[in-house]
Amino acid sequence: MKTSRIPTHKINELILNRWSPRALSEEKLSNEELMSLFEAARWAPSSYNNQPWRFIYATRDSQFWNTFVSLMGEFNQSWAKNAAALVVLVSKKTFDHNGEPSVTHSFDAGAAWENLAIEAASRNIVAHGMQGFDYEKARTELGIPEGYNVEIMIALGKLGNKEDLPEMLKEREAPSDRKTLDQIVMEGSFKSE
Amino acid sequence: MKTSRIPTHKINELILNRWSPRALSEEKLSNEELMSLFEAARWAPSSYNNQPWRFIYATRDSQFWNTFVSLMGEFNQSWAKNAAALVVLVSKKTFDHNGEPSVTHSFDAGAAWENLAIEAASRNIVAHGMQGFDYEKARTELGIPEGYNVEIMIALGKLGNKEDLPEMLKEREAPSDRKTLDQIVMEGSFKSE
Repeated sequence: MKTSRIPTHKINELILNRWSPRALSEEKLSNEELMSLFEAARWAPSSYNNQPWRFIYATRDSQFWNTFVSLMGEFNQSWAKNAAALVVLVSKKTFDHNGEPSVTHSFDAGAAWENLAIEAASRNIVAHGMQGFDYEKARTELGIPEGYNVEIMIALGKLGNKEDLPEMLKEREAPSDRKTLDQIVMEGSFKSE
Repeated sequence: MKTSRIPTHKINELILNRWSPRALSEEKLSNEELMSLFEAARWAPSSYNNQPWRFIYATRDSQFWNTFVSLMGEFNQSWAKNAAALVVLVSKKTFDHNGEPSVTHSFDAGAAWENLAIEAASRNIVAHGMQGFDYEKARTELGIPEGYNVEIMIALGKLGNKEDLPEMLKEREAPSDRKTLDQIVMEGSFKSE
């Protein structure tokens, strides 16, 4: 992927140009492509290398597909139903080595997600994270135990054509901007915006 | 950075070779280098593009340095005191646009952290995340308001020489391995390991 974003400071293009399109082609992802995305997630850092992230997925041609689609809200269904795969990302709330609660399980899962998103963008694969789904239904329908936290859903698929999106989504189909560095970086102590 | 890690599936080298060294040289980071790391973090995805991440930092030559060092536990102080900069990463718990609680603020901050870590690794800069510090002391000393969650500390600096580490840390100074894909990826529903 390539965007017209201009960074304040020069950074890796892979990071700068990752964004979250909704336009999905109808192409499948090969198993190799899908597994490469999880492979990228796999190498993220985590507290005590606990790797709390777990990826539960369904491909469009599978018996599980309709269940995964039904978890999403109407808005996300309107475009993500065209995904090649849907993923529910959950995180283990305790450490493997001693069973104690982890304070960073969600944070660590976020790092794994970003690896997946960057790897996807570098392959012109859409990886769009979603919060607009039924967290409790996901837990019940996918049998997610209490010891795991439901984090986000992810729609995956080959990048499609913006023109094929519904009118309302067409306008929003562009890389978003960000707060300035001044707004997110503070020296010495916390400062309000 | 370059490691001897072998991925199960081919992925971007930047992602595969990022790891968390503790060997820090005594060199400073230029302001440009430091800001480039935050710049990378800046472009991470987040729910509603809320960008909940805030980075509070101190460089070694600043008046804030001793305070930041004092937040860490003894183990992390033993090596991270040689960092060029220390960072406390916090996340805003509510959405800017409506003040409602966000369920993904920690997760989103984790994505920003991974961008920073990847950018650092690509520059042979150490970015080592830490959970071993006093979260409550960080809140008090840095004046972090209740509406923000303390996530992790990060030690930043130029990559140093493994041989200069204390004996105990020397042995641990190597890229860590990961669970297999089978252990973190599940089709259709949650499966226990």
